[in-house]
Amino acid sequence: VKIAILLYEGFTALDCIGPYEVLSRLPDADVRFVSADGGVVRSDTRALAVQTASKLEDAGPVDIVLAPGGPGADAACTDSRILDWLKRVHETSKYTLSVCTGSLILAAAGILDGLEATSHWAAYERLEALGAKPVDRRVVRCGKIFTGAGVSAGIDLAFELLRVEQGDDFAQAVQLAIEYDPQPPFDSGSPSKAPAHIVDLVLDYYRRRDAERGARAPNVS
Amino acid sequence: VKIAILLYEGFTALDCIGPYEVLSRLPDADVRFVSADGGVVRSDTRALAVQTASKLEDAGPVDIVLAPGGPGADAACTDSRILDWLKRVHETSKYTLSVCTGSLILAAAGILDGLEATSHWAAYERLEALGAKPVDRRVVRCGKIFTGAGVSAGIDLAFELLRVEQGDDFAQAVQLAIEYDPQPPFDSGSPSKAPAHIVDLVLDYYRRRDAERGARAPNVS
Repeated sequence: VKIAILLYEGFTALDCIGPYEVLSRLPDADVRFVSADGGVVRSDTRALAVQTASKLEDAGPVDIVLAPGGPGADAACTDSRILDWLKRVHETSKYTLSVCTGSLILAAAGILDGLEATSHWAAYERLEALGAKPVDRRVVRCGKIFTGAGVSAGIDLAFELLRVEQGDDFAQAVQLAIEYDPQPPFDSGSPSKAPAHIVDLVLDYYRRRDAERGARAPNVS
Repeated sequence: VKIAILLYEGFTALDCIGPYEVLSRLPDADVRFVSADGGVVRSDTRALAVQTASKLEDAGPVDIVLAPGGPGADAACTDSRILDWLKRVHETSKYTLSVCTGSLILAAAGILDGLEATSHWAAYERLEALGAKPVDRRVVRCGKIFTGAGVSAGIDLAFELLRVEQGDDFAQAVQLAIEYDPQPPFDSGSPSKAPAHIVDLVLDYYRRRDAERGARAPNVS
């Protein structure tokens, strides 16, 4: 099964490595990290530099395509090489996936027009402005399209796909192999659960960061 | 805060990217991926190729050092460049961390002698043989040393460190920012919770894989 993971400057690392770690355990998985220019692509912190396997135009058809989110998603949403490629691979993909603000890129490519989808909790308005119907759920499946909530949701999204594709036993075996028995220290992983002052803290952080960047739209990952 | 993440051929990607995603949000975090030879290092699947920032000898002193696990951990356990470096940075580190079979590498460096530590659930015997006292917990803290269970446990480990270092509000804010509200499809992420036939499935897989590799010791991540 051919799996292509889109990278672009400013992607958020866990958005792709979470699902990668799960999906790479599919039987005969052939995973490629790909990017518009090929070569090395850096994550949002610039600390993680990934040597991509090929340019998008050389990636060929794929069974599973994944668009991660990140502060660089804004620029990706206006990069015609990325949007054209996503449109093309989506035509023949078995599954098309996004994590976090990766759904904005799918939406900008016209893949989510009128469809239910999710994204990072602070990006619902932008997702709607791009033509999708935002849903406040961790993983939203719409036919062959799976969209995930913010950053860490990609792990749950990938397990959902594993279950659909390979059945319960296989998914449980992978869950045990990567010891996915999460024990977060707090129950504050979504705005409906976190204390109000924590939600404000995070929103303030996004506002300050976006002001520093002079960005017109908020970046959230 | 200087954070060094050790990479070696055959590391497991989520072991380092989970904690990286959390710890890179520490105030003034300066994260470097480092390796014995510098240059590009490939993950266990060989799909993820990371351009490391420097050789170990050029990394300088660090505040936080992390050893990930992976099928390559066996070789890392006998690489004197890695063991000597870990010993040296551990002398002055504020925190020394491992995820999954990364604790075997810390143990091989003599850092866990007689101390409580954890690892992937299938690696307790090897951890004990290397002089540590294996504990069946997701995160084990022993002074400045934090060891985590298999693969995905690094996320919880990093949040524990964030809480200790920056307090509850900060840790909760990061948890919300990366929407860490895990919803695994099954409750089979540890051998005490998974059905017995799933545990057997995974152990059989390890045995087959190790036989194929001709490895003398089981690889687990």
